[in-house]
Amino acid sequence: MLDKSICLENIDKMSTRAREVGVGFRPHCKTHQSHEIANWFRDFGVSKITVSSFDMAAYFAEDGWLDILVAFPFNPLEIKRLNLLSSKCRISILLDQVETIKSFHGLEKEVGYYIDIDTGYGRTGIKSDKFDQVEKIIQTARLNRKLVFSGFYCHAGNSYKAKNRVGQNEIHLKAITDLQNLKMQFSSYEPKVLYGDTPNCSIQTDFNGVDEITPGNFVFYDLMQASIGSCRESDIAVAMVCPVVGKYPDKKEVVIHGGAVHFSKESMKIRGQLTYGKLLNFSKQGWTPMQDGMYINSITQEHGCIKMRNAQFRGTRVGDLLAIHPVHSCLSANLMKQYTSLEGKVIEKLQSR
Amino acid sequence: MLDKSICLENIDKMSTRAREVGVGFRPHCKTHQSHEIANWFRDFGVSKITVSSFDMAAYFAEDGWLDILVAFPFNPLEIKRLNLLSSKCRISILLDQVETIKSFHGLEKEVGYYIDIDTGYGRTGIKSDKFDQVEKIIQTARLNRKLVFSGFYCHAGNSYKAKNRVGQNEIHLKAITDLQNLKMQFSSYEPKVLYGDTPNCSIQTDFNGVDEITPGNFVFYDLMQASIGSCRESDIAVAMVCPVVGKYPDKKEVVIHGGAVHFSKESMKIRGQLTYGKLLNFSKQGWTPMQDGMYINSITQEHGCIKMRNAQFRGTRVGDLLAIHPVHSCLSANLMKQYTSLEGKVIEKLQSR
Repeated sequence: MLDKSICLENIDKMSTRAREVGVGFRPHCKTHQSHEIANWFRDFGVSKITVSSFDMAAYFAEDGWLDILVAFPFNPLEIKRLNLLSSKCRISILLDQVETIKSFHGLEKEVGYYIDIDTGYGRTGIKSDKFDQVEKIIQTARLNRKLVFSGFYCHAGNSYKAKNRVGQNEIHLKAITDLQNLKMQFSSYEPKVLYGDTPNCSIQTDFNGVDEITPGNFVFYDLMQASIGSCRESDIAVAMVCPVVGKYPDKKEVVIHGGAVHFSKESMKIRGQLTYGKLLNFSKQGWTPMQDGMYINSITQEHGCIKMRNAQFRGTRVGDLLAIHPVHSCLSANLMKQYTSLEGKVIEKLQSR
Repeated sequence: MLDKSICLENIDKMSTRAREVGVGFRPHCKTHQSHEIANWFRDFGVSKITVSSFDMAAYFAEDGWLDILVAFPFNPLEIKRLNLLSSKCRISILLDQVETIKSFHGLEKEVGYYIDIDTGYGRTGIKSDKFDQVEKIIQTARLNRKLVFSGFYCHAGNSYKAKNRVGQNEIHLKAITDLQNLKMQFSSYEPKVLYGDTPNCSIQTDFNGVDEITPGNFVFYDLMQASIGSCRESDIAVAMVCPVVGKYPDKKEVVIHGGAVHFSKESMKIRGQLTYGKLLNFSKQGWTPMQDGMYINSITQEHGCIKMRNAQFRGTRVGDLLAIHPVHSCLSANLMKQYTSLEGKVIEKLQSR
């Protein structure tokens, strides 16, 4: 279930923030994966988007998006789909492998590429101080006239792992400083800098040198983001609505039809306890955070188990619907066929792969 | 990707085992969720199935299955779907709540119910020694002429958590002893006993008192099942085939397009290391287990990172396809739109909810 008003506020806040710090806004669509929700961004002046797969790129190109960055290391097996899509709209890709560039035979249209830069996350990308490797990419790509160097892309996903605000600030400062250095070093190519995960874009204010921010999760936020300070719980725009199917007085536990195929198995620790979702106050008007937390404590394929306090346990009946915030909204949304707004309207999304 | 010959062997072995120990075979379809795969069971004499949701029940009823147990605590909000389905075929449900039974207004056809029994797993069900609670269910249900008591159902999922074979044996022995006692205690109703998760059905031989076994995961098996001794790794019938999109010599790591939206976030520890999947030797003929394990060490939405040994790292190229066994095949299969057989044939399945 989607609270459209919260979602629109999140979009509004992030686009205002981008305008205020003076950067472009190229939101990532991997969280919502929905034509309709992407279209809400248009009212905030958004005309470029980011996605993480060619399935998503094709899905959004279908709906008229004309400038799409596939922010995932380019897979040489996708060259046919790249040709097909780039005949319809402007597709940019991500590169960090010389080997991949050598495999670019048969590129039909001009394709812009960003070099994936690693400022400390350690997943993909060229390490930000390896100017020689960056140069090698650019020189190798120059042999192919259809490949156009557009700039640098960085997802500082280590921001998710920072222990506190000081740690987050350090990660962000290192990232933008490194990107500024790269921009200076390769200034003759006039590279653009694309940067920005949800935590950094929600918290930080100094985006000096950055041309476009590309956050995605902020559209819904989730418990993980609230726990690291990217948002308040009241900013979370989605909840899974699950029926109560069992009550077990001995253990004060309620079982819902809401398991790993709804919430995924993403968990986080809250007060030392593994949790998979957090219960909300829920009525026909929507939901509000619960003062004193109650959580999904264990989860299997279709079942979720929630330990309750006495009063709540007594007040809960089999057949009741509970609204629950997910730990990771991207994975929960990916598991669902569609959203339902508070008003009962179905909001379509991309189907699973 | 699905190796049909392994899958058929798994079905053959389990149905032979059921015949040898003298119990009926009502396989659970929640793992494969596929018409075509369910039909493979028909050649082994299977005519009754188990599912875990009304979505699945409807999907399999569509394909002509006439005896379907929805082995999930009945959700009172599904009464319309129950009526609809039970007008087409024999649907049985699971009950353990007096409250649920009181909500059974408007039941149109006769529906058989099994009482969910908890022999120590602690998720749902009436504790196996609470005869009075079982009696209460039966007496409450008798007030509704359409509800017919069919027997007891038990999923001893604690078998997944046993530390060793002795622990597994104890869990199984307690479960079948408890079920025998219940069967005796309520013998005047001639209850059937339905029992059997994949670990117990794969390993145990004494099913005295059990009428039908209902395992599901065995159709594919997975790394988790191999680790607890339910199967060998060579019995795993599915692998995710993922392209290599990046190679990082500094850390001897390969990045694949294979993340939490393909494998789920189910993990297990192997030699103290969290892992999300295990690499296979892979050729056009299929896959074979790798002598010395290499694993997905970390996973995000679309990315998977695999630490490699030197020789493998050198031999792996960007664009190569890697085959990888999932930790939990049920969750991986649920995330996929379809299977592809080794011969390249598409095998359809139920789409996501």
